[in-house]
Amino acid sequence: MYDCRMDIVILLFDAVTALDAVGPYEVVSRLPAANVRFASPTPGLQRTDNRFLALQAYESLADVTSADILLVPGGFGTRPLVGNEDVLAWIRAIDATTQWTTSVCTGSLLLAAAGLLDGLEATTHWTAYELLESLGARPTARRVVEQGKYITAAGVSAGIDMALRLAEIVSGPVVAQAIQLMIEYDPQPPFDSGAPDKAGAEIHAKMRELRAASPTAHLLRAES
Amino acid sequence: MYDCRMDIVILLFDAVTALDAVGPYEVVSRLPAANVRFASPTPGLQRTDNRFLALQAYESLADVTSADILLVPGGFGTRPLVGNEDVLAWIRAIDATTQWTTSVCTGSLLLAAAGLLDGLEATTHWTAYELLESLGARPTARRVVEQGKYITAAGVSAGIDMALRLAEIVSGPVVAQAIQLMIEYDPQPPFDSGAPDKAGAEIHAKMRELRAASPTAHLLRAES
Repeated sequence: MYDCRMDIVILLFDAVTALDAVGPYEVVSRLPAANVRFASPTPGLQRTDNRFLALQAYESLADVTSADILLVPGGFGTRPLVGNEDVLAWIRAIDATTQWTTSVCTGSLLLAAAGLLDGLEATTHWTAYELLESLGARPTARRVVEQGKYITAAGVSAGIDMALRLAEIVSGPVVAQAIQLMIEYDPQPPFDSGAPDKAGAEIHAKMRELRAASPTAHLLRAES
Repeated sequence: MYDCRMDIVILLFDAVTALDAVGPYEVVSRLPAANVRFASPTPGLQRTDNRFLALQAYESLADVTSADILLVPGGFGTRPLVGNEDVLAWIRAIDATTQWTTSVCTGSLLLAAAGLLDGLEATTHWTAYELLESLGARPTARRVVEQGKYITAAGVSAGIDMALRLAEIVSGPVVAQAIQLMIEYDPQPPFDSGAPDKAGAEIHAKMRELRAASPTAHLLRAES
């Protein structure tokens, strides 16, 4: 592992949530011998769910035929892909070559839709547990869920925690802690409302309001 | 503030640290009426310090003549800009129009080089305190430092904490907490080595080794 390139493939797509991809990227891109590749069904600029930012996917799915680590981020843009057989077939094909297959937030919906999480414990954004269950996984409320080579993280910012655990597995605890020190990950949130059971009714109502105002909220049409 | 667009301008440049920009982006882009603009001295794709990822700057500095909030991220790419008078003049001009001028990580070096932090307390990545001091600010080890309209955050991931505080100032605590809930920011790092005084000698040595291996480490040549 230390002697050769470690190919880390991050799937991008229209209406991805930026931090789902970039949080883990900031960790895994610093691993010794990391070679991070961004691939998309439609290469080029991928506009994130809030539309202001775009991340570049240099490669098409056809360009990428294997990975040591696959990371699938989430975002409203996962919903159209749950029924996209080309994307699901690619995920299955890459997974057949990986040492670890991972997701952040609603990225786990795509792993589940590809059939990789059948009967396994997994997590996702807390608003998407039912959807994850309908795709064959067993949703759990833990922040990072490990099931053999499958590691799923909860919503958005949980990808940083997941990636540090992945760094530990791949390169050991000294490297993982050195990366934590480098990105000064000593979180001090000014509030304690980052989980559904920690936030009151007013916060939940405001969250639904802000969520409905997203320029890509129409992608959730089928969900309540 | 709620009736009109709130222009949030994020500076991008070659060798920016992705999470410095994207952590706060994921918070402030969800504020009511937010209009986030990414601007760069050289518009187009900005390759981040680890080179695998690129973020798109749709606008040039000349395109952006005012902002309600200015956010300057850090990264090794700040070092060449500390002596770039065009960029510093632009920062001063935008700052003259802002309600809040903010930075993450070594982005504060640019605010200081522009003369905005003279004599003020400010923070930066913990490896850059001396450099920040040499530019006229008073480095402090707090994670988020507020001095009137200037808000500086510590290294990389600290931008998320800073942005939630900024969200509170701009839109109130209910909105800030709703955004925290939406991005499920309930951090559970697997280690506690995210600050220099929390990491032992072995971790510090490994961090220096990984840092020196960065493809853009040459930008730090003048620093020890």
